[in-house]
Amino acid sequence: MTHLPTFAQIQDAAARIAPHARVTPVMRSDALDALAGAQLHFKCENLQRGGAFKFRGACNAVWALDEAAAARGVVTHSSGNHGNALALAAATRGIRAHVVVPEGAVRAKLEAIERAGAVLHRCAPTQAAREATTAQLVQDTGAVLVHPYADTQVMAGQGTIALELLAQAPGIDALVTPVGGGGLASGVAIAAHALRPELSLHAAEPAGADDAARSLARGERVTDVVPDTVCDGLRALVGTPNLDALRRHRIDVITVTDAETIAAMRLLWQELKLVVEVSSATAFAAILKAGERFAGRHVGVVLTGGNVDLDALPW
Amino acid sequence: MTHLPTFAQIQDAAARIAPHARVTPVMRSDALDALAGAQLHFKCENLQRGGAFKFRGACNAVWALDEAAAARGVVTHSSGNHGNALALAAATRGIRAHVVVPEGAVRAKLEAIERAGAVLHRCAPTQAAREATTAQLVQDTGAVLVHPYADTQVMAGQGTIALELLAQAPGIDALVTPVGGGGLASGVAIAAHALRPELSLHAAEPAGADDAARSLARGERVTDVVPDTVCDGLRALVGTPNLDALRRHRIDVITVTDAETIAAMRLLWQELKLVVEVSSATAFAAILKAGERFAGRHVGVVLTGGNVDLDALPW
Repeated sequence: MTHLPTFAQIQDAAARIAPHARVTPVMRSDALDALAGAQLHFKCENLQRGGAFKFRGACNAVWALDEAAAARGVVTHSSGNHGNALALAAATRGIRAHVVVPEGAVRAKLEAIERAGAVLHRCAPTQAAREATTAQLVQDTGAVLVHPYADTQVMAGQGTIALELLAQAPGIDALVTPVGGGGLASGVAIAAHALRPELSLHAAEPAGADDAARSLARGERVTDVVPDTVCDGLRALVGTPNLDALRRHRIDVITVTDAETIAAMRLLWQELKLVVEVSSATAFAAILKAGERFAGRHVGVVLTGGNVDLDALPW
Repeated sequence: MTHLPTFAQIQDAAARIAPHARVTPVMRSDALDALAGAQLHFKCENLQRGGAFKFRGACNAVWALDEAAAARGVVTHSSGNHGNALALAAATRGIRAHVVVPEGAVRAKLEAIERAGAVLHRCAPTQAAREATTAQLVQDTGAVLVHPYADTQVMAGQGTIALELLAQAPGIDALVTPVGGGGLASGVAIAAHALRPELSLHAAEPAGADDAARSLARGERVTDVVPDTVCDGLRALVGTPNLDALRRHRIDVITVTDAETIAAMRLLWQELKLVVEVSSATAFAAILKAGERFAGRHVGVVLTGGNVDLDALPW
């Protein structure tokens, strides 16, 4: 049973990752504010080490291990960014990382994982295959599983984004993240509500992988969704503790189509001059789609990553 | 006869544009440092207002006008970024801007100029046509010509980049800018050498528009070069005062092919997660090409702009 992190664990995570992670900037755009009818504060985790917020959680998990556990190495399954992050985090501690990646993952991401020094293990692109291959590796090597999102220390690491963002943009009254497995959404919710209980929390989910929205509507975790979306970082099913956090923190899930997300991605590139990956753009797409919920407000928007195959842009 | 700005004029420019321009960040990348064998400090003028450094010079020129001159408006010719910058700068003072643009200019840039409220005037894509159309507008409207680079206040505005960069990255011992008309290279040279006379200064020029390199080699301004390069921001011939500054400040001009520039642009997007336009990438291409001149040094690199047609990427 994986517990949700406490606010104290998120504060510990911030101290633990500080020597390794970047404090990413918050950017603004008059043009995007005008389109949204709101004041948007973009937290640029595409500029995080490894090009995605995932480094925070992975780094916290790696450095939270005791010496004996760390010596056996770490293992995970990931469509890319968490795997890359775990590889980089393991390197900061000088330990081995094994990464299970599904067939069809973005090439640029796989190359980055190998450059970071991890061992890649390929598997079929299903949740079951990922989990089975990972379990076998844990058995064979004794490595510690660092789950991409249903892991207390990973959620705590992702929650540090909210600590930074609320210090950098203290006037925000709403916060939007993408939701895939829910590690980001849950960590951010716990930290944000500890500091500012009145903040409204929103999560953007691709319509083609809307298990979080369905799970909240049905009141139990829906596991029969077959992901069909260009958002390669958001195909995972929401985790059990993560869904619990979404419910407890009354997170408003907004579903967006791939077309809406791709249009939002193009606007972000054009106006912010930032390379952000398609999964990242769901948050801005959700703001444009559900404009009435954000009108006139100061909204924090987490741009989750920038690892893009520049030869295969979606427009 | 246009004079080069003094250091005092550059300091005045910094104070004049401070309420309107952004202090752009300096970014680093371990991966790009490793490729270059040097410590690179990227000054991100793609994040400047209007998406390019040109706003500095245009803003300084607009606000340096006396009331009577300002009331008649301003006019310029530009392949895009200076025109956009002048339009935005004129809007900050509430005055009219006329912009002469050559046929074939980047569509995204023209749209931005119109959004900023300027009046567009199209002409043939030659230096002669630009200058004739502009002269006619000055005669017809009484507007003040703000030349894109051979203008004292424009050069002074561009020089403010060096003031900021040397404060943000005090350890640099070399500085690289692209060179087209030479407004940036000359302004930066004057400011940088006033503060740090020992700094080595380098300018990157497309091989297909290498009039600055030829002019320095021949000892006089070469005007018979027909530009043939994808670098749409660097097709202008180096100006007379600008060439004088290149010579006085012993600027090392490095020519790069379009293929080298496009490869450098792709690396900047991939590793910095920044959208930079092709002209901007000449500076990094020059560092990779002339690696021995920069080995082990701390190098300031001006990323000049990020206004890209996202439907027509050059790779």
